Amino acid sequence: MLYYGGDYNPEQWPAEVWADDVALMRRAGVTAVTVGVFAWARLEPAEGRYEFGWLDRVLGLLHRAGIRVVLATPTASPPPWFSLAHPDALPVTAEGVRLCHGSRDTYCVSAPAYRAACRRIARALATRYGGHPALELWHVHNEYGTRCHCEHVATAFQRWLEDRYDTLDRLNEAWSAAFWSQWYGDWAQVLPPRATQYLPNPTQLLDFRRFLSDELLAAFTEQRAILREFAPGVPVTTNFALGDWVPVDHARWAREVDIVAIDHYPSAPGRTADEETALAGDLARSWARAAGRPWLLMEQAPGVVYTGRRMVPKAPGQLARHSLAHVARGSRGVMFFQWRAPRGGAERFHAAMVPHAGPESRVYREACELGALLGRLSTVDEPASAGVAILWDAQSWWAGEGPGLPSADPRYFDAVAAAHRVLWRAGFAIDFAGPEEDLSGYRLVVVPSLYLVTDAAADNLRGYVAGGGHLVVSFFSGIADADAQVRLGGYPGAFRELLGIRVEEFHPLAPDEPVALSTGDSGSVWSEYLHLAGAEAVASYAGGPLDGLPAVTRHGYRAGVAWYLSTRLDDTAHGRLLTGAAHAAGAAPVCAGLADGVEAVRPSGDGPLFLLNHTDQPVTVPASGVDLVTGRSVDGAVKLSAGGFAIVQERSPHIDPP
Amino acid sequence: MLYYGGDYNPEQWPAEVWADDVALMRRAGVTAVTVGVFAWARLEPAEGRYEFGWLDRVLGLLHRAGIRVVLATPTASPPPWFSLAHPDALPVTAEGVRLCHGSRDTYCVSAPAYRAACRRIARALATRYGGHPALELWHVHNEYGTRCHCEHVATAFQRWLEDRYDTLDRLNEAWSAAFWSQWYGDWAQVLPPRATQYLPNPTQLLDFRRFLSDELLAAFTEQRAILREFAPGVPVTTNFALGDWVPVDHARWAREVDIVAIDHYPSAPGRTADEETALAGDLARSWARAAGRPWLLMEQAPGVVYTGRRMVPKAPGQLARHSLAHVARGSRGVMFFQWRAPRGGAERFHAAMVPHAGPESRVYREACELGALLGRLSTVDEPASAGVAILWDAQSWWAGEGPGLPSADPRYFDAVAAAHRVLWRAGFAIDFAGPEEDLSGYRLVVVPSLYLVTDAAADNLRGYVAGGGHLVVSFFSGIADADAQVRLGGYPGAFRELLGIRVEEFHPLAPDEPVALSTGDSGSVWSEYLHLAGAEAVASYAGGPLDGLPAVTRHGYRAGVAWYLSTRLDDTAHGRLLTGAAHAAGAAPVCAGLADGVEAVRPSGDGPLFLLNHTDQPVTVPASGVDLVTGRSVDGAVKLSAGGFAIVQERSPHIDPP
Amino acid sequence: MLYYGGDYNPEQWPAEVWADDVALMRRAGVTAVTVGVFAWARLEPAEGRYEFGWLDRVLGLLHRAGIRVVLATPTASPPPWFSLAHPDALPVTAEGVRLCHGSRDTYCVSAPAYRAACRRIARALATRYGGHPALELWHVHNEYGTRCHCEHVATAFQRWLEDRYDTLDRLNEAWSAAFWSQWYGDWAQVLPPRATQYLPNPTQLLDFRRFLSDELLAAFTEQRAILREFAPGVPVTTNFALGDWVPVDHARWAREVDIVAIDHYPSAPGRTADEETALAGDLARSWARAAGRPWLLMEQAPGVVYTGRRMVPKAPGQLARHSLAHVARGSRGVMFFQWRAPRGGAERFHAAMVPHAGPESRVYREACELGALLGRLSTVDEPASAGVAILWDAQSWWAGEGPGLPSADPRYFDAVAAAHRVLWRAGFAIDFAGPEEDLSGYRLVVVPSLYLVTDAAADNLRGYVAGGGHLVVSFFSGIADADAQVRLGGYPGAFRELLGIRVEEFHPLAPDEPVALSTGDSGSVWSEYLHLAGAEAVASYAGGPLDGLPAVTRHGYRAGVAWYLSTRLDDTAHGRLLTGAAHAAGAAPVCAGLADGVEAVRPSGDGPLFLLNHTDQPVTVPASGVDLVTGRSVDGAVKLSAGGFAIVQERSPHIDPP
Repeated sequence: MLYYGGDYNPEQWPAEVWADDVALMRRAGVTAVTVGVFAWARLEPAEGRYEFGWLDRVLGLLHRAGIRVVLATPTASPPPWFSLAHPDALPVTAEGVRLCHGSRDTYCVSAPAYRAACRRIARALATRYGGHPALELWHVHNEYGTRCHCEHVATAFQRWLEDRYDTLDRLNEAWSAAFWSQWYGDWAQVLPPRATQYLPNPTQLLDFRRFLSDELLAAFTEQRAILREFAPGVPVTTNFALGDWVPVDHARWAREVDIVAIDHYPSAPGRTADEETALAGDLARSWARAAGRPWLLMEQAPGVVYTGRRMVPKAPGQLARHSLAHVARGSRGVMFFQWRAPRGGAERFHAAMVPHAGPESRVYREACELGALLGRLSTVDEPASAGVAILWDAQSWWAGEGPGLPSADPRYFDAVAAAHRVLWRAGFAIDFAGPEEDLSGYRLVVVPSLYLVTDAAADNLRGYVAGGGHLVVSFFSGIADADAQVRLGGYPGAFRELLGIRVEEFHPLAPDEPVALSTGDSGSVWSEYLHLAGAEAVASYAGGPLDGLPAVTRHGYRAGVAWYLSTRLDDTAHGRLLTGAAHAAGAAPVCAGLADGVEAVRPSGDGPLFLLNHTDQPVTVPASGVDLVTGRSVDGAVKLSAGGFAIVQERSPHIDPP
Repeated sequence: MLYYGGDYNPEQWPAEVWADDVALMRRAGVTAVTVGVFAWARLEPAEGRYEFGWLDRVLGLLHRAGIRVVLATPTASPPPWFSLAHPDALPVTAEGVRLCHGSRDTYCVSAPAYRAACRRIARALATRYGGHPALELWHVHNEYGTRCHCEHVATAFQRWLEDRYDTLDRLNEAWSAAFWSQWYGDWAQVLPPRATQYLPNPTQLLDFRRFLSDELLAAFTEQRAILREFAPGVPVTTNFALGDWVPVDHARWAREVDIVAIDHYPSAPGRTADEETALAGDLARSWARAAGRPWLLMEQAPGVVYTGRRMVPKAPGQLARHSLAHVARGSRGVMFFQWRAPRGGAERFHAAMVPHAGPESRVYREACELGALLGRLSTVDEPASAGVAILWDAQSWWAGEGPGLPSADPRYFDAVAAAHRVLWRAGFAIDFAGPEEDLSGYRLVVVPSLYLVTDAAADNLRGYVAGGGHLVVSFFSGIADADAQVRLGGYPGAFRELLGIRVEEFHPLAPDEPVALSTGDSGSVWSEYLHLAGAEAVASYAGGPLDGLPAVTRHGYRAGVAWYLSTRLDDTAHGRLLTGAAHAAGAAPVCAGLADGVEAVRPSGDGPLFLLNHTDQPVTVPASGVDLVTGRSVDGAVKLSAGGFAIVQERSPHIDPP
Repeated sequence: MLYYGGDYNPEQWPAEVWADDVALMRRAGVTAVTVGVFAWARLEPAEGRYEFGWLDRVLGLLHRAGIRVVLATPTASPPPWFSLAHPDALPVTAEGVRLCHGSRDTYCVSAPAYRAACRRIARALATRYGGHPALELWHVHNEYGTRCHCEHVATAFQRWLEDRYDTLDRLNEAWSAAFWSQWYGDWAQVLPPRATQYLPNPTQLLDFRRFLSDELLAAFTEQRAILREFAPGVPVTTNFALGDWVPVDHARWAREVDIVAIDHYPSAPGRTADEETALAGDLARSWARAAGRPWLLMEQAPGVVYTGRRMVPKAPGQLARHSLAHVARGSRGVMFFQWRAPRGGAERFHAAMVPHAGPESRVYREACELGALLGRLSTVDEPASAGVAILWDAQSWWAGEGPGLPSADPRYFDAVAAAHRVLWRAGFAIDFAGPEEDLSGYRLVVVPSLYLVTDAAADNLRGYVAGGGHLVVSFFSGIADADAQVRLGGYPGAFRELLGIRVEEFHPLAPDEPVALSTGDSGSVWSEYLHLAGAEAVASYAGGPLDGLPAVTRHGYRAGVAWYLSTRLDDTAHGRLLTGAAHAAGAAPVCAGLADGVEAVRPSGDGPLFLLNHTDQPVTVPASGVDLVTGRSVDGAVKLSAGGFAIVQERSPHIDPP
């Protein structure tokens, strides 16, 4: 069974609506819903007083309808009574503002009262529902990621730092605390980053994000232990929010959940949403693969939500295409936020499977069609590796942003997304891998702007290339060590020998200041005063202060090859370079000859070939077998309508086209 | 007598200047000045110690010069001694910052100490001056509109909510408090909107604005009671500030003042200022009319103040034209902020009737000319209705802004201003009316983006059209009910039947994303996935995801007609549509055939016809009678100079041109 | 000996690096380094416990290498232990946020505990090192300029105000405190500017900046007294930071230091950096001259730091050119921040003489070349006056910015920089002078937008022109008096008679709203409704509301001439006007006929002629003598390479070219 359904909030509706909900769910082919997220105030309306009656009824209704339940612990939003009783458990901003209830997530994860209350409600739910026949999965909390700077956090941060550094001398050294007289003489002097006069300490910022990730994880595992105790055998997860604001290292967390669950909300409509969907799916499946876990798209919206200013519906067909892009990558199903659009509350205009217009709507009809289709599919394994990986490291991301860098413009996530985007457009299946992971299975590894690189990661990459691997590193990589301290002697300290170059100076570019290259391409954002030290120049700067100096280099290193990009190439040139490198390394796209905007995903094992047409024109794609969408036989070619798709169970083992 | 004068602050000047002031006032034809706004610290320099001597002298001087006095209570700015003695009466921001004295309006309206101090100074003034022969009008406070989020406010808000909702269950339902675990178990848990982690509750925001309006009104009526007690028969008012920041429902307040008084500062120069002047005048007179009150322009500036960054003088003649635009609409006079430009203080560069340059100045000369002209005019009744009304509702405004809406771009005030502007340009006299007001007297009613609509208002509009009325509703109207909860089943829930349409999805547009229409016009800001359900399509979308779907519709409903605009038309197309609808409804402009930029206002009763030439070219306008400006006879046509005007007392009852 | 070196922070490095540092310093020709800035936590790791051992060793190493020591007191950054022990000494923002340690400058200068701790560490350093043979100069603190709004500051501000105003009546009058009921009845009611409801009081803002400058100066002189007591004869200074945020009146402070020291970081690369360098050098030498002090460039960077978003290296040669631009103006040397780029800390990417790449780098090589060159030069006297001065007044700057002005756009510093820039481009040597300084030595005095003018300054300028001086005043000058109160009767109140004009109204222009002039030039930012009252119009407005009215005027006043610019001319027209006025006044450029972008600085006395080619083309400049750079003889002309320079010791007394 594939999971299909969404967040279901019966507590927001009169009981009369529930039967209608279940009927509509069945019509839509819903197999599972997430219940209880943010329901704390309705489950425990006063400290220690529980009201489970309504939830008993809801779970009963769902069970009788054959709908499985993903049961949430509601700890992401403590009720108003909790905040009033424990004001010290309200979060405090870096400026010292103690936030107030009235939204969600108003808690301090380090506050003892909050943690105790979480354990209590988790235990109450586990006791009551741990053996419920509808229970499929525990969903702890929601989108862990809040921050606080209060005294509870200060104490917890100090303990975490003691664990990490053992001695203050080591911390002072790691933080370069002699700078600006920040040298600490007592653990109690070390505080979370709070509003200060001028630039903060970068390693303090980094360690605070590391700490927060671990502290939030401890809150998760604490609940997990209780749930497992009372419901042995029921898997436990929490949903990962993607975004710069999330101080959580998902690759690390993936090892602690029984199924990796992500929420994905593209930031823009159209093709951007398609590309971001592929990126999110590839990240999630890679985190899951490395941790040996399955994965699941836990939340997406039937509409696209723009950050802040505007919401737009998904275009016809896009809902199914995005969903299948995830399933093709191994997602155990397709879940939405949310089942039914609410009448009020802050997210009243958030898209839903049953919108304000009700079931007489395009969205609900598309949801029904998708449900029917998914009912005919089984879980597919994750895609076969194409031998191409992009390195991903949350801690390097955190370290490479913030004040005091040579430029605020080279954003890590943008660099990663650009590399993924151009390879995805070229039709490659793309893995993400951690910098210290075994890379020997890959033909090509791409390293976008990996600012912080540990010694072990540097060794790992050196070994990978020495063993015959092909590597493409882009600027602002390998600059700092595990303490976010700059590696000396010429940039990029971690990779000088491997890349056969030495960079003496950064020349960041202004937003409207492109730099021409000898190839006719142009770079932006960044340039460098670079010396060859073994590598050859593949492209040089043309004009400007770096005229004639190398811009892109290639270095034969032992059995392998290491490329370096000292500027940001535009997508076309970037794609040409990465595609060329991939082909030279022996990697190939999933299918040859696909039109631009047509995506092919082929699961490993004997799963079907997913073909998704993201364009607004019909296309024909070579394939043979049976289209699981139409049930029709496909003989040599399948026609995809504009925005359409096919899922071809191929007849014979796949043979790469010549 | 028409009021003519301005805010007069003798306390800012040495007594030597006062005689000069009075002499210049007489030369300028000043008939009334507002005294005592912000004078608290000079009237009560320490708690309970009063210094009325200077005010005695000033009132005496004015009285002897025949200048009437609008006497203010100074409660908009408590003195420093008050703030130091009562720090709990200083306002607190949503972030918890307690503001400090050093500006104006630093008080919490719910603080008992502040309210007591207000009553005390009001009583002291009323006792001393209630019988003063120069006293014409009480001016309570100044521009009510401050906010606070402190504990006093929390308590008052809780009491207000108890009054409104009676039970917590009802509040929880109205606020959709089950969402995000906000369910309240005790009134003490319900707080003003304060800084919180993420999106706030929209109905909490709305109710807080409603509460603030009522709370400020209570502070006003408390002073009014004291003034009436000691000075029976003297009318009492307070000046209304216009602007998004003002959490005051002026239509509601109009019923509590003896004369509706507004302050009007256009936000931009040139034609925009002319249009905003007409809009402000029409709003004020409509509030006054509905409340059965006269009205008065209490403050305008001899210069235009741009929000924040720049001040510019009014163009020659603009001062008189703006003033007459108000008088023509029934304003009982023309008052300025301010009489004399001060040497220091935060508003030292605010324009004044006597500028820094002194009486040897264009501004003072224009003020003298205007005074002379007004001296020859009497109060005019408000304009005869042209049968065209635009709906106005402050609470809908408040509800339709804030986070979490489908788009941040459709601003209520902009939509209202656009409808007013295009009808004004077409020469119509325009009323504003409340959504629950009797509309049967109107031929055309325009409803711009009225997000929140009560059931009573929906019934009212249905009845209006059923009875033969013509209605034009624009997008994002009728979406929510009185609790700001979305009406289900398809948008616009309140008007589906009336408009003969059903909207399934909103498609808000990006700022630079116009949408083409089948008529050749284009829309912006918004578009919709709209089904006809009785209505006919007047224009359709051309291209894009909504290609071919209806954009503008027309629905014959019983004896009337209901139009719907699902996108924002540009001014030209918008004007064409509204003008066409008005003509079809049997409404006509004030005068036919006026050139663009020439405004005609004809008061009801036998008042004169005001003709204002806002263009920089001379124009000729058909009219007959006597021009009260020049005293000359007008025979068939009057010539207006560039930027000029005429006030024609017509000879015979007006006959509409064919 | 010229100072050559930079900030040296051995406490950030293991002792093994120190020997390498000294060796590299010697190779680079370093003569002096600044030690101990921000080293408080390493010198006094716990209250009263000192660790001087490392500093003893460092000073010994330096001394043995012949490198002089500028020894800093480290009081700009109290250690964490101090902040924890004295939370009341942490600074508080205007919004009431108490800042936290973790950066630099987290102290309240008015906190008794902070001042006591400063005296203690200064005394400890003075006692130990006052007689050290390497000690060259005391460097107190670093870049004084922090602000605080706490209760300690309130008390100190009240005392300062009592000193200034003597009586509350006088303060109330100066502050126009009757406005908005701000009248004070007790000194305790007068507070620093803190977050308030609306616009703050402008004179309160001004006095607070005046107070801060004096308060910070008191903290400086307190340390100075201790250092002088224990190290008589050793000069004492502190480095001046330039920038709008600095609430310090440098002209006033110059009289309190033994050598005027400035830090200079241009805000943009390329020619802008060259122009800003000349401006900074001219400001510093003018402050020093007026105070009878030498001066020194205490900090610059080997790279250009853009505010906030981006850092770029200096172009090849720019480091030397900027350095020589300062030396040519009399700087006693060239100091950098910093010697060696650190591995961590907030400024890890700040440029350094020894960059991350190490000594094998362009930057270190250029530093060595510069050191060698400076080793061949001696201190030069400041440039001979060309008879051209621009008025500079920090207090007028402060008064002319802030809310409530006619426009936010005419920025004082921009106006000063524009006047300097166009005169510098035309080759003039430019002095800065205070408004009350004796100006009789100048032929031309330029007064850019000097909003606040004391009566004494107005008299001074009147006397200057009456005595034959030539004066160019630009708009928004002479508006306010010493209390920042507007001078009445027509603008510019201080200069009406002198300029022979009377301005009735300001017409500030929108950012994209140029105004045409009769000369074909155009103005921006500002325009005025101006009457001639003795002056003649040199240019008039063409079109717009001021069509035909005077824009630029010239007034023969007694023996002199006074020009007035009522709009901001573009650089070309501005340069033409100022150059014309300068020539008419009898002033001449340093050298005639220099190409655009070539700078000549000729020190007074018998110093050499500095020729700096800021262009990217080689140029030839007429000169005769010996080039101290190459040692070669120059006969009639010297060729400067692109970006290059020459320092020509001329053979014979200079004769101006015909």
